Amino acid sequence: MTVKTGSAGRGWRRMMRNGLLAASMLVPLATMPAGAGQENLTPVVNNGQNLLRFDWPMLRIGTGEYAEGPTGVTVFTFGRKVHAAVDVRGGGPGTVNTDFVRLGYETPDLDAVVFAGGSWYGLEATTAVATAMMDDGYRSGSWDNLALSVGAIIYDLGDRRLNEIYPDKKLAQAAYRAAKPGEFPVGAHGAGRLARTGGLFGCNAASGQGGAFRQIGEVKIAAFTIVNALGVVVDREGNVVSCHKDKDWPAGLKAADLLQAMPDSRKPDWKGLRTGKDERRNTTVSLVVTNQKLDQAELERLAVQVHTSMARGLQPFATIFDGDVLYAVSTAEVEGDKGLPSFDLAGVAGEVMWDAILSSVPQQPVAPKPAKRAILKADQVSALAGDYVFSDQVKVSVTAEGDRLYAQATGARAAFAVKKEEKVELLPVSDTDFTIPGRYPFTARFAAPGVLVLNPGEWQQVGRR
Amino acid sequence: MTVKTGSAGRGWRRMMRNGLLAASMLVPLATMPAGAGQENLTPVVNNGQNLLRFDWPMLRIGTGEYAEGPTGVTVFTFGRKVHAAVDVRGGGPGTVNTDFVRLGYETPDLDAVVFAGGSWYGLEATTAVATAMMDDGYRSGSWDNLALSVGAIIYDLGDRRLNEIYPDKKLAQAAYRAAKPGEFPVGAHGAGRLARTGGLFGCNAASGQGGAFRQIGEVKIAAFTIVNALGVVVDREGNVVSCHKDKDWPAGLKAADLLQAMPDSRKPDWKGLRTGKDERRNTTVSLVVTNQKLDQAELERLAVQVHTSMARGLQPFATIFDGDVLYAVSTAEVEGDKGLPSFDLAGVAGEVMWDAILSSVPQQPVAPKPAKRAILKADQVSALAGDYVFSDQVKVSVTAEGDRLYAQATGARAAFAVKKEEKVELLPVSDTDFTIPGRYPFTARFAAPGVLVLNPGEWQQVGRR
Amino acid sequence: MTVKTGSAGRGWRRMMRNGLLAASMLVPLATMPAGAGQENLTPVVNNGQNLLRFDWPMLRIGTGEYAEGPTGVTVFTFGRKVHAAVDVRGGGPGTVNTDFVRLGYETPDLDAVVFAGGSWYGLEATTAVATAMMDDGYRSGSWDNLALSVGAIIYDLGDRRLNEIYPDKKLAQAAYRAAKPGEFPVGAHGAGRLARTGGLFGCNAASGQGGAFRQIGEVKIAAFTIVNALGVVVDREGNVVSCHKDKDWPAGLKAADLLQAMPDSRKPDWKGLRTGKDERRNTTVSLVVTNQKLDQAELERLAVQVHTSMARGLQPFATIFDGDVLYAVSTAEVEGDKGLPSFDLAGVAGEVMWDAILSSVPQQPVAPKPAKRAILKADQVSALAGDYVFSDQVKVSVTAEGDRLYAQATGARAAFAVKKEEKVELLPVSDTDFTIPGRYPFTARFAAPGVLVLNPGEWQQVGRR
Amino acid sequence: MTVKTGSAGRGWRRMMRNGLLAASMLVPLATMPAGAGQENLTPVVNNGQNLLRFDWPMLRIGTGEYAEGPTGVTVFTFGRKVHAAVDVRGGGPGTVNTDFVRLGYETPDLDAVVFAGGSWYGLEATTAVATAMMDDGYRSGSWDNLALSVGAIIYDLGDRRLNEIYPDKKLAQAAYRAAKPGEFPVGAHGAGRLARTGGLFGCNAASGQGGAFRQIGEVKIAAFTIVNALGVVVDREGNVVSCHKDKDWPAGLKAADLLQAMPDSRKPDWKGLRTGKDERRNTTVSLVVTNQKLDQAELERLAVQVHTSMARGLQPFATIFDGDVLYAVSTAEVEGDKGLPSFDLAGVAGEVMWDAILSSVPQQPVAPKPAKRAILKADQVSALAGDYVFSDQVKVSVTAEGDRLYAQATGARAAFAVKKEEKVELLPVSDTDFTIPGRYPFTARFAAPGVLVLNPGEWQQVGRR
Repeated sequence: MTVKTGSAGRGWRRMMRNGLLAASMLVPLATMPAGAGQENLTPVVNNGQNLLRFDWPMLRIGTGEYAEGPTGVTVFTFGRKVHAAVDVRGGGPGTVNTDFVRLGYETPDLDAVVFAGGSWYGLEATTAVATAMMDDGYRSGSWDNLALSVGAIIYDLGDRRLNEIYPDKKLAQAAYRAAKPGEFPVGAHGAGRLARTGGLFGCNAASGQGGAFRQIGEVKIAAFTIVNALGVVVDREGNVVSCHKDKDWPAGLKAADLLQAMPDSRKPDWKGLRTGKDERRNTTVSLVVTNQKLDQAELERLAVQVHTSMARGLQPFATIFDGDVLYAVSTAEVEGDKGLPSFDLAGVAGEVMWDAILSSVPQQPVAPKPAKRAILKADQVSALAGDYVFSDQVKVSVTAEGDRLYAQATGARAAFAVKKEEKVELLPVSDTDFTIPGRYPFTARFAAPGVLVLNPGEWQQVGRR
Repeated sequence: MTVKTGSAGRGWRRMMRNGLLAASMLVPLATMPAGAGQENLTPVVNNGQNLLRFDWPMLRIGTGEYAEGPTGVTVFTFGRKVHAAVDVRGGGPGTVNTDFVRLGYETPDLDAVVFAGGSWYGLEATTAVATAMMDDGYRSGSWDNLALSVGAIIYDLGDRRLNEIYPDKKLAQAAYRAAKPGEFPVGAHGAGRLARTGGLFGCNAASGQGGAFRQIGEVKIAAFTIVNALGVVVDREGNVVSCHKDKDWPAGLKAADLLQAMPDSRKPDWKGLRTGKDERRNTTVSLVVTNQKLDQAELERLAVQVHTSMARGLQPFATIFDGDVLYAVSTAEVEGDKGLPSFDLAGVAGEVMWDAILSSVPQQPVAPKPAKRAILKADQVSALAGDYVFSDQVKVSVTAEGDRLYAQATGARAAFAVKKEEKVELLPVSDTDFTIPGRYPFTARFAAPGVLVLNPGEWQQVGRR
Repeated sequence: MTVKTGSAGRGWRRMMRNGLLAASMLVPLATMPAGAGQENLTPVVNNGQNLLRFDWPMLRIGTGEYAEGPTGVTVFTFGRKVHAAVDVRGGGPGTVNTDFVRLGYETPDLDAVVFAGGSWYGLEATTAVATAMMDDGYRSGSWDNLALSVGAIIYDLGDRRLNEIYPDKKLAQAAYRAAKPGEFPVGAHGAGRLARTGGLFGCNAASGQGGAFRQIGEVKIAAFTIVNALGVVVDREGNVVSCHKDKDWPAGLKAADLLQAMPDSRKPDWKGLRTGKDERRNTTVSLVVTNQKLDQAELERLAVQVHTSMARGLQPFATIFDGDVLYAVSTAEVEGDKGLPSFDLAGVAGEVMWDAILSSVPQQPVAPKPAKRAILKADQVSALAGDYVFSDQVKVSVTAEGDRLYAQATGARAAFAVKKEEKVELLPVSDTDFTIPGRYPFTARFAAPGVLVLNPGEWQQVGRR
Repeated sequence: MTVKTGSAGRGWRRMMRNGLLAASMLVPLATMPAGAGQENLTPVVNNGQNLLRFDWPMLRIGTGEYAEGPTGVTVFTFGRKVHAAVDVRGGGPGTVNTDFVRLGYETPDLDAVVFAGGSWYGLEATTAVATAMMDDGYRSGSWDNLALSVGAIIYDLGDRRLNEIYPDKKLAQAAYRAAKPGEFPVGAHGAGRLARTGGLFGCNAASGQGGAFRQIGEVKIAAFTIVNALGVVVDREGNVVSCHKDKDWPAGLKAADLLQAMPDSRKPDWKGLRTGKDERRNTTVSLVVTNQKLDQAELERLAVQVHTSMARGLQPFATIFDGDVLYAVSTAEVEGDKGLPSFDLAGVAGEVMWDAILSSVPQQPVAPKPAKRAILKADQVSALAGDYVFSDQVKVSVTAEGDRLYAQATGARAAFAVKKEEKVELLPVSDTDFTIPGRYPFTARFAAPGVLVLNPGEWQQVGRR
């Protein structure tokens, strides 16, 4: 993706030059109007450079993103109807058509699995894929040719961003129509565009979608997951893979340390860790696909075992604040007698899913350095003042007092650490970048005239005067 | 609703004059372009004159219809979050967010129940209501203020009509915004716009949505149902309430006669009954609401008992070709100790639901009389010839041979009894109306220049040259 | 069954002679020790003369009864492992191994279905059949040869009788070992030994187990049900089939009348009907068996549809005070392509089940005539006085005052209308029989020296001095 | 437990003297008749010296064991009715009364949780506890005082032992009546008397029952589990805790190594590991109890989260060959507002459960040393010959040829590595002890005249001439 914001100011360009920001981390400002409503958004499809590659023509994946949210959708289709099972385990699921899947008919019925952000609002993405199939003439209204899409969503709204944009019909249909085999972008893409993990312990680590693939003989197994867990991501050595660490965070912290020290480990004073304000609406949604033919009961067993196994890679898992859902799909390309015993298949699939979980973790946002305070002149500062609109709910009033700059939220909601109650000083790092300290420090960048970008990079929020 | 089709031809106007067609039975042709796609449809809200009236400010209902389908949506909202339970029993359900409801939290979470036609495609209506609530600022993306809509659909596609229009976001949001307390149109309206019953026995009776209300002391109970059952509607005396009867249909047929004679009663030669081509994708979706506070387990029991009780009014019920779903809602306005014992409440609610079922039956379409054949001139006839487009899938080629008129389907699908395989003669009844005989005889009306209306009236299909 | 109680007194013999009591209505007093505990009971197997007969070698049925309860068990076995599904709908079920059945494996696993009285205590009967199979060498502890029995129970304790005897391992194993094909005793036998219906409306009608069979081509369908519903039994004309009617009971009462008049119809003053003390713990458990091979999802659909259809024959059904459970079994003797379409099969099976429900109703106990008061001498009366023990919980003290006889319960519980609070006069009908009036009047018979039989006949309770 | 077998032979006494056998490892031979049927077994209650101790008067636990199986039962009662939830996840569960628990009534209903060996046959133990409560007058047949016991079983039959003894009514009632607060024996006791883990990888490690307790403020949390998993037990460092290791077993094997190498790690040639004959019927059943009051939905969430978390301590978990079930109970002694947030409670409970899993592992049986072959005389050897009966199914014929001793199974089944197909030589270690080598080598001890003990110690099998 190229950076299109030619109007970016000097400081911003300097940072680019200095390599402090990679172009790939940025989204085009031009496509991000202030206060963006749902109507005029432009789908970005199949975004992401870190790709899982695999050889499986039947399995087609498309992702769609609205950078303005950011939020997104991930669509899985199969080229023909396939067998499916579902396992719902979280305390706050959002689902479509799971009741039909549970009936367990032996005939393949499923056309698509759709994961999206946007909480319950994002379920629009699921039905959208079915209607696109009808619109495109691939499916119809005939009862023996209906399109069946199932789906689930994650919670990526609330304090994570300054708007309420959700993955809608347009985005999901664009993602569906862009679906292709062999590639899956891992990290903060698709439905995992604004995922987070570790909120239970104040980590609030950036997360994303993960995928992994393994072939044993003729048997293919792929696992995909949108990792947005209340718990932390854990590797096979027991380490917490990602966490927004506090300065006093103990070194070499194991997941077992955090879990065993509950509930103390969730308190601000535990080993000096500051948990900040908990972000406690999560959900991890997952898909395991195999080409081995399984009867319906076996497929349900696969769903149960693999979903359960995820409690190793995400700790804790299936909490009351997660809405964890897993779909299992068999494309039935390989007869059972040429495949693996079902318990081997399930065991392996659990490991592929763990790999998928681990692959989901993106590079964490670079916390702004506690640099020496830059010296700005009063007229430089006053030129940045104004009311910046991020969305209907969020507005930030920037005011100058001498050579100092302050911000205060004036809309219905706060803008991260810029609160409504009182103004906060923006500490200058360069002539365009300022730091707002706190448990989760971030940058406020006056990226172009009239444009204020909070937390610039993959998860940036753009306001305009 | 006023009739807007000023261009209607002579014969049509005469029929109106003669009272053969009530204005209320007609939909405005002007709003029904030929081959209508999903894009340019106009929602018709709160259509219908046969109203259930009730006094319950918290319970607001809106209906939306696309006359071109016809198909529709019915939206129930409650003014605040309410308690909900769900019971899924049919063999082909389409549902949204039932998994969340099943978790049974004691806090009220539900904002809306949405029923729609359009099979799985119509589930778009459910999410649409949630997003409208966010768009209107009533709900938001905050985790403690998310809009939760649940829904279910009926199958009203396939051979019932000549297009694949479904209730979409626009229609559902229009219905939601038109919702009002105290009124519910019964009959072929809302989600029951193109419902049918009795396909199992070849009845294919026109059906619709029903509602009933009862108050006992302070306790209010309302039941609503979109009756689209594979089985027949049965009253409390055991009679089949509606059926597209064949000429040899036995008099005074009881449901018990039909059921006990299965499988013979489903055969064309049973007592001279002709079953025709079965229409076998159905689904009845229902809602029972009370203002009595119930704990979650009691509310689930209410859902189970009332849903089960429907097996009396619809026989058979919950078949493999139905997707029956019932939601139960408590608005919790009346404390339990001021209400009814839960088994009394459930017993009464089952009766209210039976009343609702019975109220759903609309006046059946008048089968065209086997009148004396009208005499038309060759030029009259030839003026009607042409290719009439009903949708992308359905086209009818009308050809004149002397003073006779023939029709043949030339698109992807047949147009009712106008098949693709061979042409069928249109038997003239008047200078605009022709009859097509068969198990389900219907009228083909050249309603205006270039406009062919099949089955004119509430369920008409409009084609244009 | 022959009457073995040679010691029966004069009056008792006279009633026999007069035809007021049929021998078949009596159980042998000799086998009924007073205060019978669970230890010394004698199983009575395959009791009952009113038999459903059918031709189906694979389906074997055995019943066992403890006359002392009375209570019983009904065991269904199949000669080899069969396919099974389950549908639990009642508000108070007692079940064994339904979780396994729900997993829906395509391999047949089930060995037996066991229904019993005794509420949760009666579940011992279910496991007993499995262990008998192992003991007999038919099944073993090898994982590929384990015996799988499933079961459910009805509530037949409480005020219905004066003891807490339950169907135990000994009884269930006796019934299992007595199982034979082709016969099923309908009425108050097996698990339906002390069933009741209509408690919701104060009917408290005697009930039992029902069965019906139908063959269509090669397809066999059998339905069995232990009818112990809170609701009333309803025939296909809508009549309440059995009810302990009050003297003012309205003539020709339809189920619809009762149901529509709820909650008033449950009140003592509704049309003069006296509801008495409600008996409100019920449960109807059922089994539908077919020899047609069905895949697991179809079998589950059969279970759902047939169970739902029972709401016609039992009104209301599946209430919070019922624990309704239905098992569906396929012996897979007839391949699906030689069988019926699954919806025909389910429709027919629903009717067979209704027939089964109707067959369950036994002849109601004859209420003692309000005869002219018999004249007894004081020494006759005083000879009957004494403390009669019915069980650990129930004792009745009979005292004479002149030529009058009184009774009062002195144990932990009342003995029907013989309460603990005050003595009640026993009104003499003959020199051995006395009447106790009330909502449910019954006879107290001094059947032999030192033996007091309350409610003599099929459901009698025997106390001894 | 004292050793009562005074008739033990010389060699046996010498081993005792030499400390090769601890007295605590032995069960009294006197109570173990050969070919023991189910009838004459003597319950051993509250056996075990390794006790979890905890302070919680309401929570009472009793265990019962039949040494002859060995097999056992563990009973949990609460002194009053408590709230319960259940989570069934395994592929082969055996359960009683879970359907009732799922209805989620807010009133406490549960009296007891019963875990047992004996596969489905062992479910007799669950109903037995309810009937004992009635027999003892603690509960009754009154509908408001019924005893509700729920239960689940593990598979401890098949090749693990030489008989089919199961935990029966007598054993369960003995355990119930022996229940006491504050103590829980961990290891191979109660329902975990003959548990195994790791069969998936050929480990077949001895296992047992585990328990752990934690108190936070007023909130008590206890976890109990009968660990009989197909997978391996894993500690928080990722180590496989117990496995019957082959001589070539790689050192320091992590669970992750085994799992990631599937399916290769299950093959005999993987890193030289010999998997032997897989033992693949398992099941882990668990209970988590808290004194914090939770509403029903929260309690269900607790069940789900804790059960899911067990996938860390048992890998893989919830496979098709497990029948994993977890019950969650709240005694409601501490109001919610004085307790922990439900997600904290669930997180902590998951850790307590992991501790319970780890505590379940008993000391593994000592594999007989590959000692220098002892020299026995021919008459010594011939005195040991004879037919030893272990059960109806298993008989071992011991024959002498010169100074060599051979064994061959002559009943319906093999006796571990003593097969039916051919005789195996018993290699002398002492004058009473012989070794049978193989993947799972074990000792055959002529423990007393006419008594052959296979695998002497906690899991011994006793045969008699």
